[in-house]
Amino acid sequence: MSKEEKPESMSLYPLGTAAAPEPELLCIFGTGDLGRSLGQRLLQSGYKVVYGSRRPHSCGPVPQGAQVMSHTAAAQSASVVFICIQREHYGFLEQLAPQLKRKVLVDVSNNLRKNLYPEANAEYLQRLTPEAYVVKAFNTLSAWALQNGPSDSNRQVYLCGNSTEAKEAVTEIATRLGFSVQDRGSLSAARELEDFPLQLFPLWRLPLRLAFGLTAFFFFYLLTRDVIYTYATQKKDISFRIMVSLANKVFPIVSLIMLALCYLPGVIAAVFQLYRGTKYRRFPDWLDRWMLCRKQLGLLALAFAFLHVLYTLIIPIRYYVRYKIAASTIAKMKENQTSELDTTIAWRSDSYYSMGILGFGLYVLLGITSLPSVSNALSWREFSFIQSKLGYLTLFFCTFHTYLYGWDMFLRSSYYKWYTPPGYMLSLLVPSVVLVLKLLLLLPCVDRSLTRIRQGWERTEPQDDSQKSLIT
Amino acid sequence: MSKEEKPESMSLYPLGTAAAPEPELLCIFGTGDLGRSLGQRLLQSGYKVVYGSRRPHSCGPVPQGAQVMSHTAAAQSASVVFICIQREHYGFLEQLAPQLKRKVLVDVSNNLRKNLYPEANAEYLQRLTPEAYVVKAFNTLSAWALQNGPSDSNRQVYLCGNSTEAKEAVTEIATRLGFSVQDRGSLSAARELEDFPLQLFPLWRLPLRLAFGLTAFFFFYLLTRDVIYTYATQKKDISFRIMVSLANKVFPIVSLIMLALCYLPGVIAAVFQLYRGTKYRRFPDWLDRWMLCRKQLGLLALAFAFLHVLYTLIIPIRYYVRYKIAASTIAKMKENQTSELDTTIAWRSDSYYSMGILGFGLYVLLGITSLPSVSNALSWREFSFIQSKLGYLTLFFCTFHTYLYGWDMFLRSSYYKWYTPPGYMLSLLVPSVVLVLKLLLLLPCVDRSLTRIRQGWERTEPQDDSQKSLIT
Amino acid sequence: MSKEEKPESMSLYPLGTAAAPEPELLCIFGTGDLGRSLGQRLLQSGYKVVYGSRRPHSCGPVPQGAQVMSHTAAAQSASVVFICIQREHYGFLEQLAPQLKRKVLVDVSNNLRKNLYPEANAEYLQRLTPEAYVVKAFNTLSAWALQNGPSDSNRQVYLCGNSTEAKEAVTEIATRLGFSVQDRGSLSAARELEDFPLQLFPLWRLPLRLAFGLTAFFFFYLLTRDVIYTYATQKKDISFRIMVSLANKVFPIVSLIMLALCYLPGVIAAVFQLYRGTKYRRFPDWLDRWMLCRKQLGLLALAFAFLHVLYTLIIPIRYYVRYKIAASTIAKMKENQTSELDTTIAWRSDSYYSMGILGFGLYVLLGITSLPSVSNALSWREFSFIQSKLGYLTLFFCTFHTYLYGWDMFLRSSYYKWYTPPGYMLSLLVPSVVLVLKLLLLLPCVDRSLTRIRQGWERTEPQDDSQKSLIT
Repeated sequence: MSKEEKPESMSLYPLGTAAAPEPELLCIFGTGDLGRSLGQRLLQSGYKVVYGSRRPHSCGPVPQGAQVMSHTAAAQSASVVFICIQREHYGFLEQLAPQLKRKVLVDVSNNLRKNLYPEANAEYLQRLTPEAYVVKAFNTLSAWALQNGPSDSNRQVYLCGNSTEAKEAVTEIATRLGFSVQDRGSLSAARELEDFPLQLFPLWRLPLRLAFGLTAFFFFYLLTRDVIYTYATQKKDISFRIMVSLANKVFPIVSLIMLALCYLPGVIAAVFQLYRGTKYRRFPDWLDRWMLCRKQLGLLALAFAFLHVLYTLIIPIRYYVRYKIAASTIAKMKENQTSELDTTIAWRSDSYYSMGILGFGLYVLLGITSLPSVSNALSWREFSFIQSKLGYLTLFFCTFHTYLYGWDMFLRSSYYKWYTPPGYMLSLLVPSVVLVLKLLLLLPCVDRSLTRIRQGWERTEPQDDSQKSLIT
Repeated sequence: MSKEEKPESMSLYPLGTAAAPEPELLCIFGTGDLGRSLGQRLLQSGYKVVYGSRRPHSCGPVPQGAQVMSHTAAAQSASVVFICIQREHYGFLEQLAPQLKRKVLVDVSNNLRKNLYPEANAEYLQRLTPEAYVVKAFNTLSAWALQNGPSDSNRQVYLCGNSTEAKEAVTEIATRLGFSVQDRGSLSAARELEDFPLQLFPLWRLPLRLAFGLTAFFFFYLLTRDVIYTYATQKKDISFRIMVSLANKVFPIVSLIMLALCYLPGVIAAVFQLYRGTKYRRFPDWLDRWMLCRKQLGLLALAFAFLHVLYTLIIPIRYYVRYKIAASTIAKMKENQTSELDTTIAWRSDSYYSMGILGFGLYVLLGITSLPSVSNALSWREFSFIQSKLGYLTLFFCTFHTYLYGWDMFLRSSYYKWYTPPGYMLSLLVPSVVLVLKLLLLLPCVDRSLTRIRQGWERTEPQDDSQKSLIT
Repeated sequence: MSKEEKPESMSLYPLGTAAAPEPELLCIFGTGDLGRSLGQRLLQSGYKVVYGSRRPHSCGPVPQGAQVMSHTAAAQSASVVFICIQREHYGFLEQLAPQLKRKVLVDVSNNLRKNLYPEANAEYLQRLTPEAYVVKAFNTLSAWALQNGPSDSNRQVYLCGNSTEAKEAVTEIATRLGFSVQDRGSLSAARELEDFPLQLFPLWRLPLRLAFGLTAFFFFYLLTRDVIYTYATQKKDISFRIMVSLANKVFPIVSLIMLALCYLPGVIAAVFQLYRGTKYRRFPDWLDRWMLCRKQLGLLALAFAFLHVLYTLIIPIRYYVRYKIAASTIAKMKENQTSELDTTIAWRSDSYYSMGILGFGLYVLLGITSLPSVSNALSWREFSFIQSKLGYLTLFFCTFHTYLYGWDMFLRSSYYKWYTPPGYMLSLLVPSVVLVLKLLLLLPCVDRSLTRIRQGWERTEPQDDSQKSLIT
């Protein structure tokens, strides 16, 4: 640094002193992972850090540049104290209450599972130290994110607390660490914040259960129709087909149904709105829940479609398929018959694959635009164009692909083993319904009513009966 | 909360009162989607919300915890009023102007299409209520993003307005809701902000048109050469080949051309700079526009390459291909000839596939690094390394893949049906030019000049003529 | 702001004046790319911009709306000066020092490579202008990001400087441009900030070297075993197999080993912790470094797996494979033997493919959740669930896939050409070790100890010997 060499300018201009601004001192209780990560980060951002420890001389390692003191001394030295210890060890803080009086206590703790304690950790801390200003913050970040800063990981810090000044102090620190802060209100929100890091895919539960249920159902349905039926009627063991052939029937069926289930609630909602003539009445709860997990439904459907694609593409390298093809070539050779190329079959087979590929391509596009960073870069209109227009096109391609697969199969009674329809027929039910309903909604007269309802803020008047009569 | 029970400590320590800080009151006009979503979010973030409605007792549902009043009463109760109604209904605000005097009016409205009105909604609002401080904000967010907060969706809020204080007040609210604010200046920017949510892939238009044009051209070109030629000369209907064989010729051709078009403007720009001996003169407009949509060109090219890969991989399961293979095996068998394995063909065929796979792999890598979140995590040098160095490598692999496909086809006259060259030859034109130009630019002497021009801030001097002579 | 100065008009219409608030004036030195991009952005955000140039009348183009002055005049007109010139041309600033006294100088410069100069550019600038307040900022952004704003590119601006006030002024500007600011402390951090844009995948180096090393080793190992061995013993040239067959052996082997190397350090760390009975002692440096690049290892492994999948899927369209299949069909035909379908082989082959597909599917899922925007949207627990639980499942599927590939190959001596084991056996070593160790760690007694160590903040006591004895 150059300024040390120019002592004269120092008296005139505050720069000389500004060269080494006295960094703010922060205190951390707890030298665990979290405490150390946080301390390291604070030191990097130019703060001075003091650790409070029960045994200052034999505590775990602390980041270079940080001091270790007794809890009492550490608490007295700083105005902000980060509590990075586990709730079970909060007890001693009650005795420290006098030292913590009017200090900002930042509760960073998390629990191992939900509802472990009757009150949130931060509320418990506030009860122990009633005269301190407790702020719940930073708990939703991993120690990793704390240590490495926000550039690669979540930059959002949630905080709550009863004292606005205390929250502002913590906001300032978080902002300086590079995080962006979202205030969640008073300390009573602490429980919600403490539950957040414990949640495990809450929105994925329903779609996952549905996917498992459908997979299990179709697996046993097709197992019965294919493997068990063959064994029962022809005493032939074709159980090896479970691994690929059966899987490659179950996956596309589940995928198509789930894709259709993505778009069904939207259609149902439109019907509700048309029927009621307003968009201001709440949808039933089940419809709301369903609509909230559409993205998850769609992504699971995409995963199943991805597996279907891979299972289809490995078909020609399977031992069984190679065996069959060789056997059929030999058989043809022996019979000495020259079968003609059937152009209709060629058209059908190629269209079938083409529809599948285009459908899958659009599917992947939908998946990519669901990535948070991509959907953020899209304007609202762009996002709805892709997710709605292209979404229905995807559904159409995939449904058409399945119809082409079936072709005239539904006419031949031999396919109705044990009076059950083939799996693909069952899979066509929901998508066909969705597409037909969507087509009806696109009829000019219906579409006009619907658009007016969706734009119209004032369509709650009783004279709207005329509207309802359009569709009832 | 435990502190309410300890009233004695209240006088000493301000915590008791801080426990229930009086939340700020905000007013929302309009109980539509936007109004409700915004209100819900504001309530969650600890604000008090009052709705203004024409008929306070029979308006649509409002979020729990919010009050509904007449417009006048609501406007008087708060200093910030969110206008969540459609522009057509702004009229009544003129009568409310006295109540809205010196209030901050946040115009959240959007229009259904661009240029619907001569002035921006926010400017119209300002004209109706000249004594209010109008701020345009939040309109670029969807109701969904407003309701669910910024964690999963766009966190950027654009605002503009003439009063700095008013903008600061709105900034504070937006920040508390977790958004980050970008000030776009005075209210005259409102039109731009109102157009933003209406835009539909403006940067994608040119590349999409190009892709459609190229696809259409090559489709008809190849249709003529393959299907119509065969029908005209041999009276054989091979139209079923449209679905897969033809598509799988059109897609890779368009993909390769568009990938080359991604890198052509960079090469042209370098030639311009070399010729002019400076980088400070603007490029022609067409080159600027072209360079701006390179990312979109590349992503479309990747989409076509993806389809090409899928179309290629399903080849062996096509009915037509299986028929052909069986027929050829039977023919070989009958002729009783044992053809030897041709090592050259094996080398060529395997190299062809290998180049294609490596090219596609790099292609996908380029696509992944185009994702906003990935490119953000890269330093500038890393990004340009991938997009430039790896980009040219991709182009080289894909071009080489196409040359291997052609092999000695260009020598045989039978491939020039109706005197037209095969499609793959046309596709090789642009990439070959780009690669040759790039190689020339990489020659040490040219590269040195170019690097100096790109670094040199001062190469505008007239004595730079020596430089120009290098390449002219 | 204008309102303070016009108290009278406030009661009437303050808006007319507020409509044109006097924008702040900023000065930029340098009219190069960076200077122009920055100026354009500042103008867009409502600042007035003045450029300082040596030759104000013949300098390069500046954005519309900006003025050009001499350096002296420009410096005097504004309180913040952006230095957008290259370090080599800083010299003249020493003479400008009086004009720059007490100004905020924002050093935006970067160098062409690391360690080009003994001191950071910003420190050099501070030495030249000791009475100015130098702030290093914006240098980590590309000119592109500066010009187009933060919505599509990195929104993080790093800054450092000795004067807190100066940093606050720059923070305000950066925030108004839409960036979020991270303060990195005093000016001594400038070197770190200047090195940042020059870094080229520092975390990828070790994994990339490893990948290249493994690829080279296995390539030559398999080249020797397959091609050279065949040539040496049978005088048959099968070198064409290098392009696909050999590549498709090398890629999965390297992929599996690297995937296992992703999970090995975690297992080793657990063993360390169990042995030491604490988690508070630092791991050895090599383990720390290893653990830091696990993500990169995994992504490279995924890239190799992706290539393996593509190489596998093109197998049936290869000339060599078609030739072989036709030859084998003809041979079977001639021998007139009807081989039976071997159900065991069918089971094994199908399971082999199925495991591979499921493993690859999970692999892709792991890759997707590594995308910054996706991992940000996950809670800590969700992320560790996917990366750990699903990661081990992926490793298991892929290892099992490889075991199924090998099947009983290890029993047949003909596979041990020149006494070397087949490549797939070598690839199974590391994953098998990792899976066995992981299984041991999952044994209830070991798992309980480990969980306690990882939760227990206080397990450093000497009485923990009992703990250690559990596993030693």
